[in-house]
Amino acid sequence: MKLTILFVISAFVINAQKYDSTFIKSIYNEALSKGDSYQSLRSLCKDIGARLSGSAEAAMAIEWGKKKMESYQFDAVYLQEIKVPHWERGTKESGWIRTQKGKLIKVNLLALGGSIGTNGLLEGELVLFNHVDDLKKAKKSSIEGKIVFINQAMNEKEINTFKAYGGCYTLRGNGAVEGAKMGAKAVLIRSVGMPLDKHPHTGSMHYEDSIQKIPAAALSTEDAEFLGQLLKNEKASFVLEMDCRSYEDATSYNVIGELKGSTFPNEIITFGGHLDSWDTGEGAHDDGAGIAHCLEALRLLKVLNYRPTHTLRLVLFMNEENGNKGGKTYAKWVKEKGEKHLAALESDRGGFSPRGFQCDGNEKFQTLLKSFAPTFAPYELSEFGKGYGGVDISPLKDEFPGIPLFGFVPDSQRYFDFHHAPSDVFESVNKRELELGAAAIASMIYLLDRHL
Amino acid sequence: MKLTILFVISAFVINAQKYDSTFIKSIYNEALSKGDSYQSLRSLCKDIGARLSGSAEAAMAIEWGKKKMESYQFDAVYLQEIKVPHWERGTKESGWIRTQKGKLIKVNLLALGGSIGTNGLLEGELVLFNHVDDLKKAKKSSIEGKIVFINQAMNEKEINTFKAYGGCYTLRGNGAVEGAKMGAKAVLIRSVGMPLDKHPHTGSMHYEDSIQKIPAAALSTEDAEFLGQLLKNEKASFVLEMDCRSYEDATSYNVIGELKGSTFPNEIITFGGHLDSWDTGEGAHDDGAGIAHCLEALRLLKVLNYRPTHTLRLVLFMNEENGNKGGKTYAKWVKEKGEKHLAALESDRGGFSPRGFQCDGNEKFQTLLKSFAPTFAPYELSEFGKGYGGVDISPLKDEFPGIPLFGFVPDSQRYFDFHHAPSDVFESVNKRELELGAAAIASMIYLLDRHL
Repeated sequence: MKLTILFVISAFVINAQKYDSTFIKSIYNEALSKGDSYQSLRSLCKDIGARLSGSAEAAMAIEWGKKKMESYQFDAVYLQEIKVPHWERGTKESGWIRTQKGKLIKVNLLALGGSIGTNGLLEGELVLFNHVDDLKKAKKSSIEGKIVFINQAMNEKEINTFKAYGGCYTLRGNGAVEGAKMGAKAVLIRSVGMPLDKHPHTGSMHYEDSIQKIPAAALSTEDAEFLGQLLKNEKASFVLEMDCRSYEDATSYNVIGELKGSTFPNEIITFGGHLDSWDTGEGAHDDGAGIAHCLEALRLLKVLNYRPTHTLRLVLFMNEENGNKGGKTYAKWVKEKGEKHLAALESDRGGFSPRGFQCDGNEKFQTLLKSFAPTFAPYELSEFGKGYGGVDISPLKDEFPGIPLFGFVPDSQRYFDFHHAPSDVFESVNKRELELGAAAIASMIYLLDRHL
Repeated sequence: MKLTILFVISAFVINAQKYDSTFIKSIYNEALSKGDSYQSLRSLCKDIGARLSGSAEAAMAIEWGKKKMESYQFDAVYLQEIKVPHWERGTKESGWIRTQKGKLIKVNLLALGGSIGTNGLLEGELVLFNHVDDLKKAKKSSIEGKIVFINQAMNEKEINTFKAYGGCYTLRGNGAVEGAKMGAKAVLIRSVGMPLDKHPHTGSMHYEDSIQKIPAAALSTEDAEFLGQLLKNEKASFVLEMDCRSYEDATSYNVIGELKGSTFPNEIITFGGHLDSWDTGEGAHDDGAGIAHCLEALRLLKVLNYRPTHTLRLVLFMNEENGNKGGKTYAKWVKEKGEKHLAALESDRGGFSPRGFQCDGNEKFQTLLKSFAPTFAPYELSEFGKGYGGVDISPLKDEFPGIPLFGFVPDSQRYFDFHHAPSDVFESVNKRELELGAAAIASMIYLLDRHL
């Protein structure tokens, strides 16, 4: 009797796996031979371009996303209103090193996102630090009235570049506050980018109410390397002009599309990326790729006539880069609606060759995730372990404690060549790598719907 | 007693693994922070350039390789003389579609390597086939005196692009012979490249003594796509001029460097890539990357003061692309010298992010390979299974049956964007991806030396 049951269960499991494998093969075939992800990304990058929250391009991106979803004939397509910070780079953004002998050397820089402007030309003697922590330990008298330059590089010895990024997060985020505490009149940082090149990398920074606001900008790694060497040998000053500024919060939207659950329409699996980007380059890897991945994932399930058990909800989140208002508003709204939320998944690590998925959930979800590994093996995905979901979906954790958040994990090696830099353009994304990401995400959403 | 032995053995194994892990960490640190692989590749691509067997550039590459090895102060650096085929593209290489209405449309093409020229302008009506197998089944009368165009694409549904490449190998290799059997006066193929773009991809083809030699060229995938569509709707002809030709075999060299074995100097582990390339682009991924990987691997072991047990022999093989005379000559020479050959490893799949290693050896070697997986896990390598070693090292199998041949496996997705095409230039290689490959290969050579 027991044996019979075991046999029946085993046969059922094997059949289910076979069914999954067959369907997932059809997902990959469609994505690789008739996929739309690469054209989506091209259109988002070229027809819209960079799309910082509050910009005209962000508004156009919302319209673009909604129309794209409607063209795919999802069951429901709608906008969710949110309020977002609105910061603009302005039209003036220049910087020069003035050497001891008075020679001017122009550098490539970008204001950090959220920085105040300089109100005309701002000049000051440079003080060099190699790490943001060294600045904290310095004497205030050696910094007052000067411009701080922090030449802290990403740790190239880290194998996973996101770990190296984590090590520089306070540099970019807190550099201005730490400099201002010491009386500096501006802070320059080395771009948080991996290669030595001419592209500056912007990104979010913050001020504190009780601390003087001072301008903050990032130099390209090549310029930072040069300036770091120069300051070892001689004194130099810096001339900076930036007219970036913040405006009143703007109205914006998350863009939402769904395939309704056939059995449990009120039980939701959310997945997506973020529609906003920094205002430089084209936001191709960050996070045009995630948008293209997730739009394509739901399109693939739709055209393959998959009828989900639960409602699959695709969200193109607005404002991940400087406020996460899209993610925060979405999580509250879901909670207020009284929906049951099963899981969420995010793609925000670029459009590179897929390596696997990670999940922040408990043992039960870790076991589930690992159980998918054999199904993904033919597609060369092998990383299935504990890890972070994503910024946009993280507020769901506050509203639904214990909800498993899944993160798509592509190869990380090239991500910080492009992140928040003018080089993050459509041409930096490889067609097959993008398509394989879309297929992997469609497959994971399918497996979660079937096995959660 | 038994328990004690088990404990001692376990402790020994754990200590050995810890020792390996510590040393491998130092390999990665050196490669990522003070590595020379990227500069090597830059120099090979920019100071030498494309380097087909028999060319002046191939001769310069040999000098370059020897000097590079000498600068690294390997224990022995020497050349091994070989004879190589010598084919030159010449100065004339053009093709036009002539439409039914007489409109001329110039296309991007490359003669296949080894092709004869056209002896002036050659024109003929085009006959379309979608697969080389369809050509074999066609009526001779429909082909005689015409130009065959085979519009066979790589199968984009294959996850690993090398499998898709395998499916097109007879297209490029045998297309001319199959066309000539049917009385065609030339054969055009769709380039064996994955993306739809303007770059034609060359590569080796062969003739048979008893079959008429006819010219063979590859059109860019974009031009092939266009021509394939055109020929569905109307007749067209093709005008071709190529003055490529073969010359007498030339004298050339494998470049060899060694770290001598401290315990078993006459027991050899060979590893390398191929120094020659096709004559278009800069041979960056194919196989400049393999050369940079392996030069760096031995340099890393040398600068980290590793004293190998067995002799580690780095070979920069000449003539992989059109004859494999380097690999064949090397294998015979090793056999004649009476050396014991433990294993060989090749890197010839590009400079992309590492995924693992494969081995063609028996169960014992498969077990050994798999035992390395935990040591490589922190470096995000996960593929350790059965597979091909490489073209250059494969003749060793004839001389030493049972010898395990290892192949380095980087991510395959972008390889056939560049393979044998003008786009295979230094800029297509990412610094970190290349460095990680060099570190992985150094680590594998170290592990083989320690555990074989």
